[in-house]
Amino acid sequence: MTFQEHLDRFHQLQHTYLSWRDATQVLSWDWRAMTPKKASTARADVIGLVSAKENEVLCSEDMVKTLDYLTEHADQLGEVDRACVRLLKRDCDRARRVPVELFNEFAVLQHRSEAAWEEAKRTDNWPLYAPHLENMFTYTRRMMDCWGYEGSPYNAMLGYCEEGMTTEILDGLFRDVRDGITPLVSKVAASPVEIDDSFRFQRFDVEQQKKMANMLLAEMGFDLTRGFIAESEHPYTTSFGLDDVRLTNHYHDDQFIPAVFTTLHEGGHGLYEQSYDRSLNGTMVGGGLTSGMHESVSRFWENIVGRDRAFWEYMLPKIQAYFPQELKDVTPEGMYRAVNKSGRSLLRMEADELTYNLHIILRYELERDVFEGRVQVKDLPRLWKEKMEAYLGIVPADDRTGILQDIQWSMGQFGYFPAYALGNMYNAQYSARLKKEVDFEGALRQGNLAAIYNWKRDNLYRYGALYTPDELMRKVTGESLSAKYLVEHLTRKFTELYEL
Amino acid sequence: MTFQEHLDRFHQLQHTYLSWRDATQVLSWDWRAMTPKKASTARADVIGLVSAKENEVLCSEDMVKTLDYLTEHADQLGEVDRACVRLLKRDCDRARRVPVELFNEFAVLQHRSEAAWEEAKRTDNWPLYAPHLENMFTYTRRMMDCWGYEGSPYNAMLGYCEEGMTTEILDGLFRDVRDGITPLVSKVAASPVEIDDSFRFQRFDVEQQKKMANMLLAEMGFDLTRGFIAESEHPYTTSFGLDDVRLTNHYHDDQFIPAVFTTLHEGGHGLYEQSYDRSLNGTMVGGGLTSGMHESVSRFWENIVGRDRAFWEYMLPKIQAYFPQELKDVTPEGMYRAVNKSGRSLLRMEADELTYNLHIILRYELERDVFEGRVQVKDLPRLWKEKMEAYLGIVPADDRTGILQDIQWSMGQFGYFPAYALGNMYNAQYSARLKKEVDFEGALRQGNLAAIYNWKRDNLYRYGALYTPDELMRKVTGESLSAKYLVEHLTRKFTELYEL
Repeated sequence: MTFQEHLDRFHQLQHTYLSWRDATQVLSWDWRAMTPKKASTARADVIGLVSAKENEVLCSEDMVKTLDYLTEHADQLGEVDRACVRLLKRDCDRARRVPVELFNEFAVLQHRSEAAWEEAKRTDNWPLYAPHLENMFTYTRRMMDCWGYEGSPYNAMLGYCEEGMTTEILDGLFRDVRDGITPLVSKVAASPVEIDDSFRFQRFDVEQQKKMANMLLAEMGFDLTRGFIAESEHPYTTSFGLDDVRLTNHYHDDQFIPAVFTTLHEGGHGLYEQSYDRSLNGTMVGGGLTSGMHESVSRFWENIVGRDRAFWEYMLPKIQAYFPQELKDVTPEGMYRAVNKSGRSLLRMEADELTYNLHIILRYELERDVFEGRVQVKDLPRLWKEKMEAYLGIVPADDRTGILQDIQWSMGQFGYFPAYALGNMYNAQYSARLKKEVDFEGALRQGNLAAIYNWKRDNLYRYGALYTPDELMRKVTGESLSAKYLVEHLTRKFTELYEL
Repeated sequence: MTFQEHLDRFHQLQHTYLSWRDATQVLSWDWRAMTPKKASTARADVIGLVSAKENEVLCSEDMVKTLDYLTEHADQLGEVDRACVRLLKRDCDRARRVPVELFNEFAVLQHRSEAAWEEAKRTDNWPLYAPHLENMFTYTRRMMDCWGYEGSPYNAMLGYCEEGMTTEILDGLFRDVRDGITPLVSKVAASPVEIDDSFRFQRFDVEQQKKMANMLLAEMGFDLTRGFIAESEHPYTTSFGLDDVRLTNHYHDDQFIPAVFTTLHEGGHGLYEQSYDRSLNGTMVGGGLTSGMHESVSRFWENIVGRDRAFWEYMLPKIQAYFPQELKDVTPEGMYRAVNKSGRSLLRMEADELTYNLHIILRYELERDVFEGRVQVKDLPRLWKEKMEAYLGIVPADDRTGILQDIQWSMGQFGYFPAYALGNMYNAQYSARLKKEVDFEGALRQGNLAAIYNWKRDNLYRYGALYTPDELMRKVTGESLSAKYLVEHLTRKFTELYEL
């Protein structure tokens, strides 16, 4: 077979593999957002079957031979094909190290565990969930052992989520974050400044919230003809190519701010998935880069935009149009202060921009310690409470607002939590650059969100997964990731707000 | 291998096959109800891939050997397994006669054709759709040639939709229907009775209509924890076992009656899929019997219940609660008359109970004639208009309200239209029996819909697909299908209503 024939074959295999991946992911989306609870377990088995087929295509001999040939002839490949071959070979090599039975069993158990978590969270029933979580850790550890790793076993999972990431690097970055913000957290707690955000707790009609969410998405530049928002217990975003990007939201009828920030967050993920170059669509590099980079774009819209004073000068009247009665006395400054009120919260999803990072560090340490064998699953609820006490000074009274609050572990999604804090760091670093090149406050004040979207698209989104995170950061900001921009950003903001 | 080993293997194969079928159908559902239009074509290819895998399982050597063995040993099988083996062998034999390439190509073309139809209907663009419809006829004809048939080639498709059905039987039944109702249609047209249904055309809030639809479903006995209503261009029902039954509706903001009758119709399908014995769940006989029997249960709720005077005595106040202003002057008698107003309508979906059958006979004749080679696809729009003129005395001004109105052909769903008229006949026949055993009008008047649901469940729903349609009809009514009950029912109703 000639080089061109190998390349054609590669394109076919890539297409088939990504089609199966889409099939699995559409089914998973449906399972979360649409399937009646009573059918959850039966459907989990169906998804397991399709996922097994996806894995079979990835691991096929044909795939291996084609990838091996093209890896040897990488210098003849264009930039996009070269990146796709590299990523597919990485995934193929990793998958082939895992026995088929282990993979298939895990795929079914993941969905069952997630279903158990949902029930356990609803009924505050840790014992119901514990064996499933135990499964998730055990199976993930077995997968890691198959994949191989250097140093901590947890590095296998970190590197899977964020190419090049290790506990060594992360321990350093997180230490800088913690050292930088802990004094700030104490000063905020001691500040006499009181922020009144009582307006956020009222009845807010859910249908109006849904309309508001669509308005926000359109303002951000999200194309509603190539995606939409549905509802699920735990909001998330998924995409099947550039033209089908789906967000979910979760509405509360007694407050409206979670819907605003979930829309900004998931909308940020969605924008990323709608904005890479169309030439990358349907390839391995069509889609966001790593989870850290993905969380950076989502938390950019949530924090850098959505928690900025100038944003609310533009956006508040638009939101008031949906709740004229409920929000009639709120001012942009009042809104700005309310959404930046810092305090000790039990729930990560409701944490402010400052303390959020401590919620992440807590989770990071717990999962690292389980994988390194220092901690057992049965002890996690207790350790959760101890760390909450130590880092945030509060202790959850139950597990619903403790260890059961997050979906990620239930899906076997370990190594993912650090992405949120990494995202905050990426964010602060490239936002510093953005603010040099674009009149950020001016654009927000005038509602010219397009200027901000365009900068992000031209500097980040368009590349999809062509580069590694480090390559991309150096391309955009001229340097590798550092915690200092995040610490600077938080110090500036909270010093002003709390008159520290 | 022992008998028991063969049986175990059969259960495994049946489970795997049905799992793949569920996967395909969940993806199809998502494609219709959720996928953004711009992603339609790409997703159609994905569904084609999954559907090919489903077909591969059905046609596997392992399946053939297991089915052959158990067919030989059918006398040792219990009733359910025997029925499952028979149905799976029928489907396996039929599928194996079709070359894999033909099947796979068809699966992709079906979804593309449906997407083209949707666009063509929206823009009244027959030429856009014509080549796709030509494909549907051509590929279906090729499939039929593979399957084999006796008499008319169309019999292959009729028998596929309705076991045992042929053009010979159907020509006779439809002649009886036409002869029975044509004089009635003329008399109604000449009747001086005028029914005022102007109240139906007003603004009706869509969110209120959605709430009304859920209320109606709950009243019918549909379990909303095992299914739900979404929206799609063309309403339909699909199910993945007893615990995940999905309906779609299509809401119009300028009238509310379509939402009522679509809910009753699709809810009828849904009830059937939720009500077979749980012991049949996950087997070949878990699910409605044939398309004709399915349309009988849907049109039972739509016509026998929903177009009955006593029903509106109970239901009107409940619906008025959603539209107190819009419906304040409507009486149960006025509602009864409005929903039974007979006239010449262009759209099948909006036709009254009497003329509906003529819409079906028109479609039946056209598809039969294409398959028998007497008519060409390019001539269908003209022939449609000619037949509308001949049977109903009106001619559509465009194709949107003519040949483009229905989804079925676009999906290659031929042989299905007769099911609606068969459904009307089954319906009238077993409703005559039901009315002997249950105080039908009394139950409706008191809102005791459960009494009606229970009779249907105990006599029809519970059996799933255990029997052939003829066996079931004889079991329930003591005789084979005849047109006379339908003609009697319509004559009685319209003679009274129009004072003939």
